[in-house]
Amino acid sequence: MALISKSLIKNRGLDKLKHKANELLKRTLDQHVSLAVTGLSRSGKTAFITSLVNQLINEGNGAKLSFFDPVHQGNFIAAKRVPQKHYHVPRFDYDAAISALTSEPASWPEPTNGISELRLAIRYQPKNSMLKYATDMATLTLDITDYPGEWLLDLPMLKQTYQEWSEQTNRLMTSGTRGEYSKSFLAKLEKIDPFDCASEELLAELSQEYTALLHTFRHELGLSVIQPGRFILPGDLAGAPILEFFPFPALDTLDANDYQNAPDDSLIGMLRSRYLEYKEQVVRNFYREHFLRFDRQIVLADCLTPLNKGKESFADLELAMSMVLESYNYGKSGLFSRLFSPKIDKLLFAATKADHVTPEQHAPLVALLNQLIHQNKHHLNYEAVQLKTLAIASVKATNSGVSKHKGKDVPVIQGQRLVTEPLNMSKGTSKDCSNDKSNDVFGQKITVFPGAVPSQLPKDDYWQSKPFNFITFAPLSGLGKHQCLPHVRMDQVLQFLLADKMI
Amino acid sequence: MALISKSLIKNRGLDKLKHKANELLKRTLDQHVSLAVTGLSRSGKTAFITSLVNQLINEGNGAKLSFFDPVHQGNFIAAKRVPQKHYHVPRFDYDAAISALTSEPASWPEPTNGISELRLAIRYQPKNSMLKYATDMATLTLDITDYPGEWLLDLPMLKQTYQEWSEQTNRLMTSGTRGEYSKSFLAKLEKIDPFDCASEELLAELSQEYTALLHTFRHELGLSVIQPGRFILPGDLAGAPILEFFPFPALDTLDANDYQNAPDDSLIGMLRSRYLEYKEQVVRNFYREHFLRFDRQIVLADCLTPLNKGKESFADLELAMSMVLESYNYGKSGLFSRLFSPKIDKLLFAATKADHVTPEQHAPLVALLNQLIHQNKHHLNYEAVQLKTLAIASVKATNSGVSKHKGKDVPVIQGQRLVTEPLNMSKGTSKDCSNDKSNDVFGQKITVFPGAVPSQLPKDDYWQSKPFNFITFAPLSGLGKHQCLPHVRMDQVLQFLLADKMI
Repeated sequence: MALISKSLIKNRGLDKLKHKANELLKRTLDQHVSLAVTGLSRSGKTAFITSLVNQLINEGNGAKLSFFDPVHQGNFIAAKRVPQKHYHVPRFDYDAAISALTSEPASWPEPTNGISELRLAIRYQPKNSMLKYATDMATLTLDITDYPGEWLLDLPMLKQTYQEWSEQTNRLMTSGTRGEYSKSFLAKLEKIDPFDCASEELLAELSQEYTALLHTFRHELGLSVIQPGRFILPGDLAGAPILEFFPFPALDTLDANDYQNAPDDSLIGMLRSRYLEYKEQVVRNFYREHFLRFDRQIVLADCLTPLNKGKESFADLELAMSMVLESYNYGKSGLFSRLFSPKIDKLLFAATKADHVTPEQHAPLVALLNQLIHQNKHHLNYEAVQLKTLAIASVKATNSGVSKHKGKDVPVIQGQRLVTEPLNMSKGTSKDCSNDKSNDVFGQKITVFPGAVPSQLPKDDYWQSKPFNFITFAPLSGLGKHQCLPHVRMDQVLQFLLADKMI
Repeated sequence: MALISKSLIKNRGLDKLKHKANELLKRTLDQHVSLAVTGLSRSGKTAFITSLVNQLINEGNGAKLSFFDPVHQGNFIAAKRVPQKHYHVPRFDYDAAISALTSEPASWPEPTNGISELRLAIRYQPKNSMLKYATDMATLTLDITDYPGEWLLDLPMLKQTYQEWSEQTNRLMTSGTRGEYSKSFLAKLEKIDPFDCASEELLAELSQEYTALLHTFRHELGLSVIQPGRFILPGDLAGAPILEFFPFPALDTLDANDYQNAPDDSLIGMLRSRYLEYKEQVVRNFYREHFLRFDRQIVLADCLTPLNKGKESFADLELAMSMVLESYNYGKSGLFSRLFSPKIDKLLFAATKADHVTPEQHAPLVALLNQLIHQNKHHLNYEAVQLKTLAIASVKATNSGVSKHKGKDVPVIQGQRLVTEPLNMSKGTSKDCSNDKSNDVFGQKITVFPGAVPSQLPKDDYWQSKPFNFITFAPLSGLGKHQCLPHVRMDQVLQFLLADKMI
């Protein structure tokens, strides 16, 4: 009797031990990926994250993820949203975004203005790894961080002195369309003695003018290189002196000694010290608190709008891309130890809004993006970072087909044109309602061939012929909250970013 | 020759040395005051800081500062704005505020929503101190920090567990008018099992509802005790989980063990951990980064609006005052060392908008404020903190006089009624423009006796008779940017807060 119960206890103990060991192993082997999503404002970050979450949590409910191995091979079990890691970081508002996309009339979700987070727990059956001997089910925890591409463009400032940054930014401000808009601002600076005692009010006024220029560059001219990025998305720093500086022209003509010894309360001294504070408190802080912790990064780029805007806008996108690539190289120089270099091992560049061109244009679109990236490939350490480019539509807004034009088959897309100005429905504005264009918002579809995407960096003759006419579409109507959103190549995105962590 | 030049050099050296010693002494003896200005939203913080800066920088240009000794005795020289201390803290926007007050029609400045700073350098001639032997001129550096009173009301949370805070907040939410508004929210909570696994979406939804209640309490019911304060002024934390919790009712009925052992992913566990994070990351952070560094504090209280709103609103002001006083006591308990206790040595409570009642009512107004404070005086360590109460008007908006009513002399004030709803001047809304009330905005003045302020905490019969009728006035028109703003007792404010540092 005593013997039996002893053995029983022993067995129970063993079971417990086995279970514990199994749990421990499981926890150790459970995977974690910190995925960063970025892109300049209006590149489609919110739609992308919404679609990514939507595809995973609704898998099985109409998901088209054939190129995502865990789904294709049947070892994807389910995904759900779980509480995020950092309590003090705003949560990515998936619910508001999916509501906008699935309401009637459907609309694009409100863009985010700063950083936000969302965590998914993805359950899967390990197939090939050592995990399958230990457990039937494993969990991949996916932390998604959304942050403005403008912050990424600030990272190269970490390597620049105020003088270097000023010179670079001034070259930009005096060329092309930027030059025309900057004239009166630069004329004001010319009249100022940089060694004068600084007036905080003057600095504030001039900084506001510089910030207004940045807004014009980004939102009116469609340019990509906006520095300092926090100026146009200030958040709680609005009105703080740390956001009140600007590049000062012709610093190289000043006496080097005078410049170095300029006191902190001189105009140039104050500009310099605020630039340094911005680098430390804003840029380096983002680098340390967030950027260093990302495992994988997707950079969304809207190449179509710059193609539409013209040569200068496209050239600016090129420059922005090279600055982004430079960011991934930061920390690998001698100045900073390996400890402080980013640990990102996969970097995906996605040309968004691929559904806004006809399908046969996707190949040239990717070729174009590749050219934008590979011009700068010498910057990247290819051994450490795996690179990929894709043309995607996070949430597909058009259907493609073929139309007859002058007896020939022409590829076309069909969708509902986006009316960006909201219609004024109040008190007898019937004039607007009878207008053809604004009727689109009520469901009238248009069928178009937006033009050909060049597969090479376009030359001058391309810009003269203006062969491309980009139209913005509204989301398709009738989408369901708990169904998978239509997309283009989101499965390939998932395959590249997550599949290797789920085997 | 050699001798002469040696002595010359020696003399020069001595002069230099003297100058240096003088400078050093001056720098050592130069004074610095860090003044914090707070008050609940709409108590008049922006107008107060604007007036304080305006009086000092325009001194000599019509300033009426007879009760401010440095001016009265003639050793005030001049004050000017200098760059603030912390680059990452928004600058108090004096220029925008003074522009609003001096434009035509004049308007009250836009309220601030978070923290802001401004630094003044005040030059004076030391008269009585040891400074006068060392130098002809000394500088008092005044750092003014403006922060929402709601943040101050959060400080008592530092001493409370989630359970204690929940119980206190629930008692408040189930009594008086708050109770009526909170019913449907509390009914929802009753249906929830606190040990259920938490859904982040549910927490977000309920927190939004709780936040909406706080807004109603503050802005519709005119109540003062709003916790957590950051919920109604979120800034960059908008949408972050750290602002997504709420008090849970009847925690005392839960099994103490169950409550203590509730896992972090249960609903109650998550509420508790977010409360703790809020305390650490938001409340203690403010305490450490700012509150501990203040030398002097002025708390602005609008007692007139609560008097007008009625018994409950006034009782809430009493509670808020006791919480404010408690904050100054925090850190003196055994839990925290003296190192972490605030160093504030002077605390001024000012009843604002004194110009909104007739002058003979100022004495009862101060008496009333004194009663509000002194009920709680046992909280304060009087040896360490010097306390004062005043009735002030930062920017005087009325003129006072005497009017005949039924053959008797009646004290009155005259001013321009504030029209808070902006007039719609567009497309034929002539109905509004012909309205008598809205004509006030174009300069028509009204003359009133707003009623008597009780000099004691009012009893029930006071509230039944409703003897007080508070009217909000617009600023006087015709004020000049570089002239001193009209005020009531700003000189006494300056005397209490600064004069002892300028002797």
